Amino acid sequence: MPEHEGEDEEEPIGAVLFEQSQGLTDLDPDALRTALHAAVEVVVAHLAGVADRPVLPAIEPGSLVGLFPATPPEAAEALETILADYRALIEPNATQWQHPGFMAYFPTSSSAAGIVGELLMTSLSQNPMLWRTSPIGTELEQVVVGWLRQAVGLPDSYDGFLNDTASTSSLIALGGAREQAGLDASELGLAGRAALGAPRIYASEEAHSSIEKAAMTLGIGRRNVVRVATDGALRMRPDALAAAIDSDLEAGFRPVAVVATLGTTSSTAIDPIGPIADIAARHGLWLHVDAAYAGVVAMLPERRADFAGWERADSIVINPHKWLFTPIDASLLLTRRMERLRDAFSLVPEYLRTLDRSSPVRDVNEYTPQLGRRFRALKLWVLLRWFGLEGLRRRIRHHIEQAQAFASWVDADPSFERLAPAPFSTVCLRYAPPGPPRESGRARDERLDSLNQDLLEAVNRTGEVFLSHTRLDGRFAIRVALGQIRTEDRHVARAWEILRREAAALS
Amino acid sequence: MPEHEGEDEEEPIGAVLFEQSQGLTDLDPDALRTALHAAVEVVVAHLAGVADRPVLPAIEPGSLVGLFPATPPEAAEALETILADYRALIEPNATQWQHPGFMAYFPTSSSAAGIVGELLMTSLSQNPMLWRTSPIGTELEQVVVGWLRQAVGLPDSYDGFLNDTASTSSLIALGGAREQAGLDASELGLAGRAALGAPRIYASEEAHSSIEKAAMTLGIGRRNVVRVATDGALRMRPDALAAAIDSDLEAGFRPVAVVATLGTTSSTAIDPIGPIADIAARHGLWLHVDAAYAGVVAMLPERRADFAGWERADSIVINPHKWLFTPIDASLLLTRRMERLRDAFSLVPEYLRTLDRSSPVRDVNEYTPQLGRRFRALKLWVLLRWFGLEGLRRRIRHHIEQAQAFASWVDADPSFERLAPAPFSTVCLRYAPPGPPRESGRARDERLDSLNQDLLEAVNRTGEVFLSHTRLDGRFAIRVALGQIRTEDRHVARAWEILRREAAALS
Repeated sequence: MPEHEGEDEEEPIGAVLFEQSQGLTDLDPDALRTALHAAVEVVVAHLAGVADRPVLPAIEPGSLVGLFPATPPEAAEALETILADYRALIEPNATQWQHPGFMAYFPTSSSAAGIVGELLMTSLSQNPMLWRTSPIGTELEQVVVGWLRQAVGLPDSYDGFLNDTASTSSLIALGGAREQAGLDASELGLAGRAALGAPRIYASEEAHSSIEKAAMTLGIGRRNVVRVATDGALRMRPDALAAAIDSDLEAGFRPVAVVATLGTTSSTAIDPIGPIADIAARHGLWLHVDAAYAGVVAMLPERRADFAGWERADSIVINPHKWLFTPIDASLLLTRRMERLRDAFSLVPEYLRTLDRSSPVRDVNEYTPQLGRRFRALKLWVLLRWFGLEGLRRRIRHHIEQAQAFASWVDADPSFERLAPAPFSTVCLRYAPPGPPRESGRARDERLDSLNQDLLEAVNRTGEVFLSHTRLDGRFAIRVALGQIRTEDRHVARAWEILRREAAALS
Repeated sequence: MPEHEGEDEEEPIGAVLFEQSQGLTDLDPDALRTALHAAVEVVVAHLAGVADRPVLPAIEPGSLVGLFPATPPEAAEALETILADYRALIEPNATQWQHPGFMAYFPTSSSAAGIVGELLMTSLSQNPMLWRTSPIGTELEQVVVGWLRQAVGLPDSYDGFLNDTASTSSLIALGGAREQAGLDASELGLAGRAALGAPRIYASEEAHSSIEKAAMTLGIGRRNVVRVATDGALRMRPDALAAAIDSDLEAGFRPVAVVATLGTTSSTAIDPIGPIADIAARHGLWLHVDAAYAGVVAMLPERRADFAGWERADSIVINPHKWLFTPIDASLLLTRRMERLRDAFSLVPEYLRTLDRSSPVRDVNEYTPQLGRRFRALKLWVLLRWFGLEGLRRRIRHHIEQAQAFASWVDADPSFERLAPAPFSTVCLRYAPPGPPRESGRARDERLDSLNQDLLEAVNRTGEVFLSHTRLDGRFAIRVALGQIRTEDRHVARAWEILRREAAALS
């Protein structure tokens, strides 16, 4: 183990500038060590103090561009200067995703394990597009995908790979669906083909925008994503799904895929996967499961029932960069149909292909819209060993407990209303003080929408916590999304305290 | 400036394991410092010794998976163990992209500047999808895009943003072209529209596969990428382009875009951009320029003539992670048509849109297939200041000089043939010893194809250098691609020595 073995040889930081401004190559090892240790100190100082910064910086749009020179630097600058500017100009103007009060959207945690993993990964700068360009990048990805698959209890009929984001994972899955439906769209394209009915994708009203975005990119068209109605708990209604497909078939459309969401973005609702899988199977449609946020909860044996039936999906997306303490980016796509993804995205002619499972060579670029790739498996390998499944489960459970506590506080307070079930780590609520006598339901919603927008702004202005919002059944809802690794119980309690205090101040 | 100010408080490395295996949050600052400094030592040791490793590891496909446990780790493991396994299992089984003898494909350099930049970026883990989710991520990206634009001498009519790879940048550009042509494909899709002629994209026979991949993804279809013939120097023939468009119009196709390449992947040929731009303009087609590799050469005033005319393009891609010493990933898309990209990729309805240039708020996800994004501008900001344009130009010039020297050695040796012009840092050649008397041209090519495949394998087996290959006019060509920041003159000379020695050994 290297334990600062070269410490005493470390060069003064000034040597870095001399080399970079004179040389034709890169830093020598001693100067590199100096530079990296200096950067580490900046990182440690930032993370040690992040909780004291405002989560959401109080700045006006457009006010930052002018802090930087309008023209690029001609001469090399000293590392001290760059790092000092980083601390002065970059850190305070970031939205602090690493703040324990970051409870907006879904948090992304740069855990120490993730930072170490990314650092190692960057120094290798592998491009595992081909087996040959990174044997370890290719094969470790297979290992780590297998580990994650087992961790969430899926059978070994699922294979997969890592992408940047859920948007890309879902786009790839729907690209596979396009081919599975026999459209031969990657080769022939979708236009100018007389007899071709427009392909249709079904997803609930609460499904993530990435599904529409994928349809736009794939030439399927946003209009051909059919938004299926939800029930009172914001779950897709299987009867509405069946009816939509029947009606589309009648009208000459070509159904290709159903997207079920386990843990929607707005309220973390859980679509009834069993009945949806039945309908998809009946019509031979590709079933894609968006579990980008909540999929990691399947690591908890006591919660696996929520996912029962997802093993019938053709493809599943789970994002380690959401609730698995992995710095952005890392999205896992699991599928039982690797060969269809290759039909959609491979440029290698058939006679050059190696068989998927029998040959040890896998060239992952054949399954993706991109050619170049990052070695994301490395940071996940570090992270899974660093925490162990046990340590990951403990933290995920803890976030769920924190959210359940928060939900119970909301429920116990007559001035607040919960607007959706909270099955995971996210609570949707609104402040709902009494209104004038005989107020109509609609007038009440309008009053509370406005009040809660003001409340959200007031809460976020404190800088101690950052919450985001959504609309549920048309009503403005404040979302409290836990899962940032640095969020302790006291931060959760503080968020509730601030919400109540700011609400009272509005009245 | 922090100068290891906390050094004496550093915790023993064992403390890391205790925290990760007991805690509910992440490491405390002292343990984080211990972990990151330990990782830095591993990185420095690896890069200090990378030149002594084989560039291409001598391993069989499928032999690595078995080095790792088949099941995920249940308990937390010590950082020492993870780092020791990293050194034993990961480092030696990587294709060493950071080796000075890496002369395959196009090199990607993890410069010290790039590693520092990525480290800072990871610790913030910003997601600049919205201005609000990262004000500095959004605005620094505008600053850095402006710096790079000026560095390559393009006018301020070009705006842009950073993507993962050139595949994505070109896909986005062609998505914009699809909308510019009035297809309204993102909204309506391309299928089931009776009167719609198939959209067509024109690119040379030598254009990169990412253009076909984009057409596959976008639902345009691989078949609708028309590969235009090249001249003797592997440049697109404008007369062939004009004829292809005319013939397509006659046949009822719908031309939408022309892709010109400045620095093709195989031989770094330079398409005649002026005449191509004339033809694109005449037909109102989107002109996309793929300068992913060579675009940085426009930073050299003495080479700007090679790019004259590219300022007429609708979009241009340049990859910092190719020849600008930036670790993967970073691809710059410049465009004069931001609004068309938004037509293709924005889910925000018109009435919610802010105007592009007049409003200071930019939400970059409106221009991309992905929602989540990395804060790539940060590493480029560090890198541009670290080297200064002067330091970048010096290194790029140096790589061009190295390649010119290499080309002159090939030209001076009667046993070798150069197979293409070498305008940048890449040389294409073959070993061509005399054959039997009265050998036909075809028989000669077949003999030399086989001989050069053997030669390439022999060279790569030495582990001192890694070269890749291509086919030019049907002939097998060995490519020597310089541009890795660690490649010194002696490594280039050594590559030539090895090529000659292994060639002689084959005879």
